[in-house]
Amino acid sequence: MPGPKTPPPLLYADTERSADMLYFGRVAMHDPFLAFGLRGKKYAVVSALEFGRVRRTSGFDVVLRLEPYLDRARARWSRRPPGPAEVIYLAAEDHRQKRFTVPADFPAGLYQKLRTLGLDLMIADGAIFPQREIKSPSEVAAIRAGNRCSALGFAAAEKILRASKVVGRHLVHRGATLTSERLKFAIETACLEAGAVSANTIVAGGDQACDPHERGSGPLRPHELIIVDIFPRVTNTGYYGDMTRTFLRGRASDAQRALVSAVRAAQLAALKKIRAGVNGRDVHRGVEAVFQARGFETKRTATGSVGFFHGTGHGLGLAVHEPPRMSGAIDYTLLKGTVVTVEPGLYYPGLGGCRFEDVVQVTAAKPKLLSRYHYNWEL
Amino acid sequence: MPGPKTPPPLLYADTERSADMLYFGRVAMHDPFLAFGLRGKKYAVVSALEFGRVRRTSGFDVVLRLEPYLDRARARWSRRPPGPAEVIYLAAEDHRQKRFTVPADFPAGLYQKLRTLGLDLMIADGAIFPQREIKSPSEVAAIRAGNRCSALGFAAAEKILRASKVVGRHLVHRGATLTSERLKFAIETACLEAGAVSANTIVAGGDQACDPHERGSGPLRPHELIIVDIFPRVTNTGYYGDMTRTFLRGRASDAQRALVSAVRAAQLAALKKIRAGVNGRDVHRGVEAVFQARGFETKRTATGSVGFFHGTGHGLGLAVHEPPRMSGAIDYTLLKGTVVTVEPGLYYPGLGGCRFEDVVQVTAAKPKLLSRYHYNWEL
Repeated sequence: MPGPKTPPPLLYADTERSADMLYFGRVAMHDPFLAFGLRGKKYAVVSALEFGRVRRTSGFDVVLRLEPYLDRARARWSRRPPGPAEVIYLAAEDHRQKRFTVPADFPAGLYQKLRTLGLDLMIADGAIFPQREIKSPSEVAAIRAGNRCSALGFAAAEKILRASKVVGRHLVHRGATLTSERLKFAIETACLEAGAVSANTIVAGGDQACDPHERGSGPLRPHELIIVDIFPRVTNTGYYGDMTRTFLRGRASDAQRALVSAVRAAQLAALKKIRAGVNGRDVHRGVEAVFQARGFETKRTATGSVGFFHGTGHGLGLAVHEPPRMSGAIDYTLLKGTVVTVEPGLYYPGLGGCRFEDVVQVTAAKPKLLSRYHYNWEL
Repeated sequence: MPGPKTPPPLLYADTERSADMLYFGRVAMHDPFLAFGLRGKKYAVVSALEFGRVRRTSGFDVVLRLEPYLDRARARWSRRPPGPAEVIYLAAEDHRQKRFTVPADFPAGLYQKLRTLGLDLMIADGAIFPQREIKSPSEVAAIRAGNRCSALGFAAAEKILRASKVVGRHLVHRGATLTSERLKFAIETACLEAGAVSANTIVAGGDQACDPHERGSGPLRPHELIIVDIFPRVTNTGYYGDMTRTFLRGRASDAQRALVSAVRAAQLAALKKIRAGVNGRDVHRGVEAVFQARGFETKRTATGSVGFFHGTGHGLGLAVHEPPRMSGAIDYTLLKGTVVTVEPGLYYPGLGGCRFEDVVQVTAAKPKLLSRYHYNWEL
């Protein structure tokens, strides 16, 4: 929670959209609700539909019922149907607190209505819970568990790729053409079985993989690099894993080997640099230096970009992308205890794309590896 | 898009959080980006990482590169790192447009920064794209496809329940105790195979089901009502299905039969009332009347609520919960072409919970059913 001089936090969000809300209340809620802090206690106002569950399972100290607030709002402002602004105003009044800090992603419409009603809201500049960036041992365990799900996904994908036959320009598995969709199904089922939801899994081969956020579709080709990026969310905890491996079924060319070897070398160079106090930008520049030294150029073209044109890593936790950042354009010092992905990649249409992604916790010395899967890629 | 007198829309969101953004641009994006409308055209500003994919696959008319904007922002405001506010300001300046409408859930922090920079932002009161509520034939087809995934989930669950043996207080399937988790895995795998992600599936038996948003965990008991609520999102389109059935493996009591029969009767009563021009509140009151006539009381207790204490239905589309609403507290007229769930339920700890949920499109006459699965529940 913010320090004593900052007004207490006030949030209105569901936990699917707001990792801050899940961090604050530690209970999944699919509809937006009111939560606030006051004198060291956490308050929530929820509907009858959620009341019992939130009281029983959440981290809130005080759980209040929404319906009486709606009744009171109806009585007080008879000319309009009561909404969250009226409920928040009444709850603030009850607790004799008119000043709050709201997160930067607080809804602007609600912000404006609350100001009109007379609340004094400060918008957090940066994170409303900066301590979310530093991961506790139980959070680290939850992220490791997420990465174990990613690894199960790679194992499922690798098994199918190895069992596939090269038939001309196709890979054939159990009598049918192997596609990105089939491989994703195997990966996502493996994650589900382990208690995680892997949405938007990337299985992209050949030139498709040169668009780093292309999920991939259609037949996977032999002798082409296939990027597999799995970022499952563990259902029980809400924490994510996030790992990437690159595979190839068939025979790699020398150019493909040079590409993959450069990416792995860049990842190892980044891992060597990462420690508390280092700027993420310098880690990123180290990756760029490895690519440059090996002759892999980065440039913008008319249709997109080639080379290395995304960040080296991002924080991971209750959100897939969160602070810290390691990127060429961003000045960001890595703090002890933060968790980041390390994911250099190279993309050249015609040759293909390659990315390796692991997850580490930043320490005062060598980073602690929170993800494990081998780097053999020629299957 | 808003009418000619409203300023054009401006959004800054990712499509996981913002159904409006997905509706506007028709392309999945996991990181927030800028989009706006101008003189009937849709603009997006995206990073190199997304540029090619968005140009190729989205509904945007003009796709601009983020990086040159960041470079220009760095040159113009040298004292701070460039953020979305600076990029939006420059893009607005380039297009000689300083007035925009932003959605009510636009981030308050960004709203404030943009106003400070000099943009004139109107916050939409209600939906920024009100036409999202009326579903086109292709949207209806996408929702039907979502509900087909729900139905596949019920089929998977029913098959396992029927194949389970009653052994004392347990259900045993393939030699192991049947749990909510195992049933959810079967359901979610069936959805995945059909191309949809079913997160937060509810399989709750006995008293667990009396908390309507409790997902359920642990052994499922024979002779107890089991609520199964499946709301999968079809990966290709982003549209949801949302259906609920209640099952019981073993032998139902007369009280359970009366409960289930009341819920189904209430659902049929609601379906009879729903048509364009009717107020959702009146549909809800019709459901309440059925329950009252059959002696099923609703009341708040010290630990929660019993009876019928949630809405009768909600809109469904790119979000699981969206307008219109059918609820006792909300005055909302149903428009032709909108799509709503119809989901009365009753919950009494000790006896159990029951809910049936289907999806219909509102027409000038009888609503069009968009979900199909049978209502046999004693297995």
